[in-house]
Amino acid sequence: MRENILSKVSPNPVEKAYVRKVTDKAVKLVAEQADKIHSGLSVMVVGSVAKDTYVYPPDIDIFILFPKETRREDLAKEGLQIGRAVVKDAEERYAEHPYIHGWIDGLEVDIVPCFRVDSPAGLKSAVDRTPFHTRYVLQHISEKQRNEVRILKQFLTGIGIYGAEARVQGFSGYLVELLILKYGSFEDVMLAAQDWRRGTTLWLEEKKGKNEFDTPLVFYDPVDENRNVASALSEDSFAIFLRACDDYLTLPQESFFFPKAVKIWSVKTIRAELQERGSRLLVFSLNRPEMTEDNLYPQLRRTLDGVRRLLESWSFPVVDGAYSIKEKEVVFAFELLNDELPRMRLHKGPPVWTENAQRFLEKWKEKSYGEVFIENGCWVAKVPRTHRTAKELIEKEIKGAALGSDFRTLSGLKIRNHREALRAELKADLTLLLDKTPPWKR
Amino acid sequence: MRENILSKVSPNPVEKAYVRKVTDKAVKLVAEQADKIHSGLSVMVVGSVAKDTYVYPPDIDIFILFPKETRREDLAKEGLQIGRAVVKDAEERYAEHPYIHGWIDGLEVDIVPCFRVDSPAGLKSAVDRTPFHTRYVLQHISEKQRNEVRILKQFLTGIGIYGAEARVQGFSGYLVELLILKYGSFEDVMLAAQDWRRGTTLWLEEKKGKNEFDTPLVFYDPVDENRNVASALSEDSFAIFLRACDDYLTLPQESFFFPKAVKIWSVKTIRAELQERGSRLLVFSLNRPEMTEDNLYPQLRRTLDGVRRLLESWSFPVVDGAYSIKEKEVVFAFELLNDELPRMRLHKGPPVWTENAQRFLEKWKEKSYGEVFIENGCWVAKVPRTHRTAKELIEKEIKGAALGSDFRTLSGLKIRNHREALRAELKADLTLLLDKTPPWKR
Repeated sequence: MRENILSKVSPNPVEKAYVRKVTDKAVKLVAEQADKIHSGLSVMVVGSVAKDTYVYPPDIDIFILFPKETRREDLAKEGLQIGRAVVKDAEERYAEHPYIHGWIDGLEVDIVPCFRVDSPAGLKSAVDRTPFHTRYVLQHISEKQRNEVRILKQFLTGIGIYGAEARVQGFSGYLVELLILKYGSFEDVMLAAQDWRRGTTLWLEEKKGKNEFDTPLVFYDPVDENRNVASALSEDSFAIFLRACDDYLTLPQESFFFPKAVKIWSVKTIRAELQERGSRLLVFSLNRPEMTEDNLYPQLRRTLDGVRRLLESWSFPVVDGAYSIKEKEVVFAFELLNDELPRMRLHKGPPVWTENAQRFLEKWKEKSYGEVFIENGCWVAKVPRTHRTAKELIEKEIKGAALGSDFRTLSGLKIRNHREALRAELKADLTLLLDKTPPWKR
Repeated sequence: MRENILSKVSPNPVEKAYVRKVTDKAVKLVAEQADKIHSGLSVMVVGSVAKDTYVYPPDIDIFILFPKETRREDLAKEGLQIGRAVVKDAEERYAEHPYIHGWIDGLEVDIVPCFRVDSPAGLKSAVDRTPFHTRYVLQHISEKQRNEVRILKQFLTGIGIYGAEARVQGFSGYLVELLILKYGSFEDVMLAAQDWRRGTTLWLEEKKGKNEFDTPLVFYDPVDENRNVASALSEDSFAIFLRACDDYLTLPQESFFFPKAVKIWSVKTIRAELQERGSRLLVFSLNRPEMTEDNLYPQLRRTLDGVRRLLESWSFPVVDGAYSIKEKEVVFAFELLNDELPRMRLHKGPPVWTENAQRFLEKWKEKSYGEVFIENGCWVAKVPRTHRTAKELIEKEIKGAALGSDFRTLSGLKIRNHREALRAELKADLTLLLDKTPPWKR
């Protein structure tokens, strides 16, 4: 199996030659444009192409190193100008400052301006570190380990947690390389992870920094020991990784690397599953704000969490929630234990002898079912529940929930109750919500 | 109004003379019997008759004082023997040791043996303190205050918290007398209570003890400063008192002293009220164990609390609970927000990286609806709920609840769900559960 995986993830000689050719061309184009605009710029290939640790087809990362005296605005402006001149379908993206993503001869290329600094201690922007990462890996990696990196990257891709971007919150390419440098091989990483816990802290060559990070995994950056290379890894991605390692060691299969596609459930299946579980749906959608995925995903998570807390604080226990991005809207779907509650709720008040007791009594005595009564020395009122259904709650209270900032206008809000959500157009979103089968078990 | 109340609670000359006559007769009978059995015994009238603070008709309390060298068994045996010889319908009751309750010429009489001690510091039994209480009050109370005591006793009777016995958990007669000695009059007690809080601590003549008591009200006993006269007062009785004082000062009415009788709701009314509230009934009954009320009430409370916790721990939120004693059984009734729950419940497991994770997975993976999934780094299983209805829960799990010790056999257990509880034979119990109107507002 190992040979089989390797043959799929390792570029063949034709692919390698093609990547080299396109990279050389890209460097040449960038350098020509750079010379036109600004003297003293240098151009550097970084990332997985430079390190020869990519899985085909790679992103080609070209960095333009500006003198560190350059003003930020100039760096950004000129960087974009150079990028736009050399790639097809140029698109502005953002790291700490903007850069250009586009295509050259069928391969994706990022053209990123950065400051040329003498050491990571002097960096002016987070991307300035990348050239140091590239050099560090090139100095330490063995030929054999390059393929180990590829296997681990593919494993992480297969289980859905490769990439540090906001959508994934998983393992960056550099983190994968450091793990291979530390443990030697893919199999050794699998074995080592058996002993990992939340808070496990790793480093190379005793380059352990002093900072404490509260992340599920810490890996001190060998080129900048104050930085945690695993800072983007979420709790859930970390847990999924441990689970996958465990399952993989029990029964290694190709499905970890190349899982089957998600099977979208039919409305009939969804209905039957919900019937079986006895749980209820609540779905709402909002207009999709115009912004990059890296900005959108954190807002989706914040909104999902905020509405979840809203539902639970009004006694609608949430089984699970999921969000999905469509062309023009974003969809939030919840599975609830209950979407309709009893008419009455208990409202616990202050002790009878406190200042607030009188105010509580006056407020509730008319609205209460029967007399306000005393329990353990405190007033208790039986009051009508404000919102009896989850849909009504969302309608009336969502404006007060902790939402992502670009959702606060509630533009395009559409709320569906259980019956209204059981529609063909939502079946992919509902499958995502209900089907928790991990990729390797599909 | 005050005059009206006073005329009702204060004995008229005929009543006073009759009480005196019966008391004298009782003392004489007891003394005669005592002399037959044991030399050196003395007989003393104590309590409200001795202090002339009773509301007609009083209990006449006759104490037989034994030399303090007497063995406990002899004191108990001889005390009972004397008591039985002088009263009609003699019944054995218990304080710290047994005594006799019965009737003489139509008045209730308690014949209680105790040790004659020189000071409360040397007492051998809690009842030995009573003669000191009687002497203390007689030495300090004014003629006018006797009627203030009567008014306050009647007020407490009316609002349902007069008496320190387990059934009531309210104010003892002695506590009422001390309150009048402290504040001077019924009205002054009402006014003083406006400033009371949980933990309010009172004393007379700087006779404040050093002990700290964790009770809602503390009143240091002037004859034994290590004792809290209000120790029997429950949180709820204390709260009811404060509420009643507040309501009384706002609108003084005879209904505080002489409330209307409870109106038992019809089944139709009960059904309509529950319909309106949207809440549900769960009732169970058990055989009534043979024991005194003072022993039975604490067990009823313990059982009610234990079953309440059982219900809530299985996600049946309890609005309120009530117990009642019938001739042959005891009835526990609960009002629930819900008596039927969704089929599924969420079962939160350990973090993925802990030792227990594997055990959790193996235990739940077959039983779970869909895959066990990860949330915030922890396993979560969607599992079938063990008990979907409150009745089923009680049937299966009541044996594990914290019940009063004499209910643990579950002898005579009969459980009724909502529909089964809506029966005429339970309407008094259900009225008690559902109607929280305080006595003075009936």
